[in-house]
Amino acid sequence: MDLGLRIDKAMTAAISQAQGTSEPAGTVPGRLAAALNYAVTPGGARIRPTICLSVARACGDDAPDLADRAAVALEMIHCASLVHDDLPCFDDASFRRGKPTLHLAFSEPLAVLAGDSLIIAAFEALAAAGPHHATRALLLLQLLGRHTGMPHGICAGQGWESEAQVDLRAYHRSKTAALFVAATQMGAVAAGHEAQPWAELGARIGEAFQVADDLRDALYDAQTLGKPTGQDKAHSRPSAVEELGVDGAIRRLKDCLGGAIASIPSCPGEAGLAQMVRLYADRMTPSLPAKA
Amino acid sequence: MDLGLRIDKAMTAAISQAQGTSEPAGTVPGRLAAALNYAVTPGGARIRPTICLSVARACGDDAPDLADRAAVALEMIHCASLVHDDLPCFDDASFRRGKPTLHLAFSEPLAVLAGDSLIIAAFEALAAAGPHHATRALLLLQLLGRHTGMPHGICAGQGWESEAQVDLRAYHRSKTAALFVAATQMGAVAAGHEAQPWAELGARIGEAFQVADDLRDALYDAQTLGKPTGQDKAHSRPSAVEELGVDGAIRRLKDCLGGAIASIPSCPGEAGLAQMVRLYADRMTPSLPAKA
Repeated sequence: MDLGLRIDKAMTAAISQAQGTSEPAGTVPGRLAAALNYAVTPGGARIRPTICLSVARACGDDAPDLADRAAVALEMIHCASLVHDDLPCFDDASFRRGKPTLHLAFSEPLAVLAGDSLIIAAFEALAAAGPHHATRALLLLQLLGRHTGMPHGICAGQGWESEAQVDLRAYHRSKTAALFVAATQMGAVAAGHEAQPWAELGARIGEAFQVADDLRDALYDAQTLGKPTGQDKAHSRPSAVEELGVDGAIRRLKDCLGGAIASIPSCPGEAGLAQMVRLYADRMTPSLPAKA
Repeated sequence: MDLGLRIDKAMTAAISQAQGTSEPAGTVPGRLAAALNYAVTPGGARIRPTICLSVARACGDDAPDLADRAAVALEMIHCASLVHDDLPCFDDASFRRGKPTLHLAFSEPLAVLAGDSLIIAAFEALAAAGPHHATRALLLLQLLGRHTGMPHGICAGQGWESEAQVDLRAYHRSKTAALFVAATQMGAVAAGHEAQPWAELGARIGEAFQVADDLRDALYDAQTLGKPTGQDKAHSRPSAVEELGVDGAIRRLKDCLGGAIASIPSCPGEAGLAQMVRLYADRMTPSLPAKA
């Protein structure tokens, strides 16, 4: 099955479970249930679950249901982080993926709760893997926790924005790279491989993604991107463009992606995986500035 | 070891892990790390972990490390829910446990992140149980997710407050009882027993606790309670006092606790457990109205 279809199918099942769609009518809070679906649609690139399944496939994908659960868990955590980051107390963002942010479309309480519920649903998706692959599932849960919470996950990354002195390396590693490292490691573990050799691939893709995001934030307008731009400057956030300039940032992006390909551990599907990273490289590199 | 000491020790270890206290200085966001500790101290009654460990002990407690992890997970989820519930967009509470609420002592972003991080740390505590009891650990993770998230956990309970039409039974069952059901079931599962027979005990203690909370909210002043009172009325929330009057609510409380004791499944420590519920009954029943 096409990876995109696999992800869509698994996401639909997991969200439907969290929404309680098989429960008797009126026994589930309907607005929060609707907010969960709103938070994960439209899907966009689904880049983290795609990386996860690509690595699982490169490693033999001998437990596809478990790999699907890992992919879904990553995407739900990612969507939860977007919902919470968009809140008035953080970015105070008005639109995302071309539609109003969740707290504007629903309410601030429902945005907090939808984020919380998606975080929990992510762990539930893995916990429900069944006893057949219990040891792998526990490892996946550990990896998800480590790269999501404190002290080194995406919560820590966001937490750095409340510090007077920022460790820039730790900031970037946590804020963006952590979930990409989770994606490569969880794909490998779901297929019965070791996590550690896959950390570098995730870290390099994550760094590339962060640099690409900084470039888009600096170069594109909001309409092109479907979300507000110029946010790094507006919130005085550290950015590769500020540090290296536009040309330097584009060079850094290419270096990261080259390093990512070089770091792929030897596995049955090594060549296909390198091809996937090249595809992302083309997509990520900004073609031309759309802003004046 | 005394249950209170066990819980303190396990909580300290789990929070220290989340804070990254063994990491090199400056590589962890310090304010968020401090906020995690702030959110879980002072401990208060630690009622959910105490119930969890009491049930585990009644069931033989053959895997005490796993029971400790379950207890800590429950308490971290409970503290996370308090931090998020106190946010300006929910209760907008100014103090809790006799000190300023987390968003006032730190900031709103750090309150959102501390809650998120504690939720994740709760799942991590169980995921780190090690492969020895992998099947039990997965069951515990499932129970934690079910009673915490959507569609029937405490997130759902809070979600009902955004609905025009409220299913009162579902509201109370999710908002308060869910985490008590988790406490009894997780204590049993940690010790290798079935979850299902322990649901009723948790539900009845949870209902008693909700009624006692409604009574305290209606009868006590803020100084006595260490948090704002009169909140049910102020936020037009359904309450047992509003529904049954003060005397009726006290009768309901006693009925719940009697039912709780009657529901205890037969197990080695049945008598001790009944004694614990009686102890809670005395503590929970308001002695006299302190408000005019």
